[in-house]
Amino acid sequence: MLSAYFDPVRGRLAAALRRFLEEKSAELARVNPMGADAVERLMEFSVRGKMIRGCLVHLGWCLAGSGAADERAVTSAGAAMELFQSGLLVHDDIMDRDPMRRGQPSIFRQYEEQAARDRRADPAHVGQALGICAGDVAYFMAFELLSRAGLPGSVLGDVLALCARELSAVGIAQMQDVAWGASSSPVDMEQILRMYTYKTGRYSFSLPLLTGALLGGGSEELRGRLEACGESLGLLFQLRDDELGLFGDEKEIGKPSASDLREGKKTILVSLLMEEAPAADRRRLAAILGNPRSTRRDVEFVRSLAASDAVRARLRSLTADLTARAEEAMRLLPCGAEDHRAALRSLLDFTTSRSQ
Amino acid sequence: MLSAYFDPVRGRLAAALRRFLEEKSAELARVNPMGADAVERLMEFSVRGKMIRGCLVHLGWCLAGSGAADERAVTSAGAAMELFQSGLLVHDDIMDRDPMRRGQPSIFRQYEEQAARDRRADPAHVGQALGICAGDVAYFMAFELLSRAGLPGSVLGDVLALCARELSAVGIAQMQDVAWGASSSPVDMEQILRMYTYKTGRYSFSLPLLTGALLGGGSEELRGRLEACGESLGLLFQLRDDELGLFGDEKEIGKPSASDLREGKKTILVSLLMEEAPAADRRRLAAILGNPRSTRRDVEFVRSLAASDAVRARLRSLTADLTARAEEAMRLLPCGAEDHRAALRSLLDFTTSRSQ
Repeated sequence: MLSAYFDPVRGRLAAALRRFLEEKSAELARVNPMGADAVERLMEFSVRGKMIRGCLVHLGWCLAGSGAADERAVTSAGAAMELFQSGLLVHDDIMDRDPMRRGQPSIFRQYEEQAARDRRADPAHVGQALGICAGDVAYFMAFELLSRAGLPGSVLGDVLALCARELSAVGIAQMQDVAWGASSSPVDMEQILRMYTYKTGRYSFSLPLLTGALLGGGSEELRGRLEACGESLGLLFQLRDDELGLFGDEKEIGKPSASDLREGKKTILVSLLMEEAPAADRRRLAAILGNPRSTRRDVEFVRSLAASDAVRARLRSLTADLTARAEEAMRLLPCGAEDHRAALRSLLDFTTSRSQ
Repeated sequence: MLSAYFDPVRGRLAAALRRFLEEKSAELARVNPMGADAVERLMEFSVRGKMIRGCLVHLGWCLAGSGAADERAVTSAGAAMELFQSGLLVHDDIMDRDPMRRGQPSIFRQYEEQAARDRRADPAHVGQALGICAGDVAYFMAFELLSRAGLPGSVLGDVLALCARELSAVGIAQMQDVAWGASSSPVDMEQILRMYTYKTGRYSFSLPLLTGALLGGGSEELRGRLEACGESLGLLFQLRDDELGLFGDEKEIGKPSASDLREGKKTILVSLLMEEAPAADRRRLAAILGNPRSTRRDVEFVRSLAASDAVRARLRSLTADLTARAEEAMRLLPCGAEDHRAALRSLLDFTTSRSQ
């Protein structure tokens, strides 16, 4: 259902990205040969994503009655959202030292490998530095695309300010994630949920839905409901991410399994494990978290803890609570045709059952 | 002259930055305690700069007749320009491993020191990761400030697209700078000048002048002249930067002297030295470039080469050529009251004679 509804949108998003990035490639090739090369890498990277955020801009616009902006502008805004996401992921991978993303070497690793082939001094540092630049360029291109998307003048400033504000919160939430990852002190669930809310929930779901609603001329009431709904959906999405990180198939999720454990990430799942594990297991779990040399047996041990009835029950209860909140916000949506509302509802199933 | 003209503008820019960043600090404190802390660091960092770019927005607006936008909006746009610059410098310092900036530890080093005090795992990596986030947040806040500056709807999209486009070119030029720094192959002057044009010239001078001109309702002809003038001024500024990097007083320039040499930067000055040095000296020079363990005697040796008549003559000729181009563009400016034109001219003296 979700796929059938979003597939045509995804195709248009990819086409808009290609159109814009081909233009940028020609422009930045004039700066130096690394320009076209960087744009090419970002294009490949961006179109390999699920494009959920870009699709949600479109859905928000439909739910708001497709007023104000025309579809071409909405598609460009959605494509910009995908470029923001690319920039964030490129930087995240440097911070998390993730060698793979979306089934390919992460961007900084691509540059590192290239630097090694070119016999540059300190390829690891060169890779990181070029990765930082590539992420920056992705942000700047996203803002340019948004500025030139042909958005109605009445909402242009609001949309740009909304994106920029939400992204600044993502940056701060990411800082917390980094700092926690480098510490062995446990963190309480409330704080982790707040981190998820800003790092994923609001940014990945509320922001694109709200952007779409602004472009569709939606009322303040509609926008408030979509914002609330987005937060819950985003948290559900992130909870599923925790599970996929531990249990997921590497090929499907496109990055190494159990990397959260090795990086010492303070996830909701880890926090539940620590709370629910028998005292005897807790010490072993603590020793595994943040240990880059954890073994396959260690990972199996953590999986067995996560499969316990107590942990499953806590996760189910958290999921049920968030699902109820999302459903309530959807029920109160002041308008929107049935097929768009159904698409929003089907996002609920997707966020909790997706395998990639 | 320059100082007297720009000092009041600088005061208003600092006030606008503080106003906006205090609001952001309160907002981002709600994400987590690192939010207010990061904004505080970026505020300290930003107000310690020379604020040339912010002043140039104001000057461009004046030269264009101060139409279209009101002064408050112009000041906000100038403040945004300073935040862009902060973000770029925060990321540059990570890439160049520069421990000092503007007379204080660079932002990533501040985080690294904090992480070491807090006994985090791998403080160097934590410092870099938090520095990446802080730079990102600076960009996002800059775009938010620009979006909310109260710019007239007729130019908002153009100003944002202009900034974003020029920044994407800066990112690509920076990539080239990084790649060259990790290579011992010489680079020809033409390529270095192109890198300077995009990394500094257009971004630091043309962009703010053009932004100001758009906000002032300036004609296309005026904007074309300012763009050309900015490129020449920016190149002169960067040439002086090369000299200050080698001969400057560490206290005045706010960062370690001769870091360009140690980082193996392909600067115009280094390129001239290689071209003009006697064959016997060239080998020693090549061994010093990019060597992080170069000694004080090595630096003295490079300084003696740079003080040779041949190098001085080449630099003078390059400077004279750029100055003539800037003066020609200024002479042809289609409008602007005499005091604003005088301020623009006095920038020429500043770019070639500044000591910080």
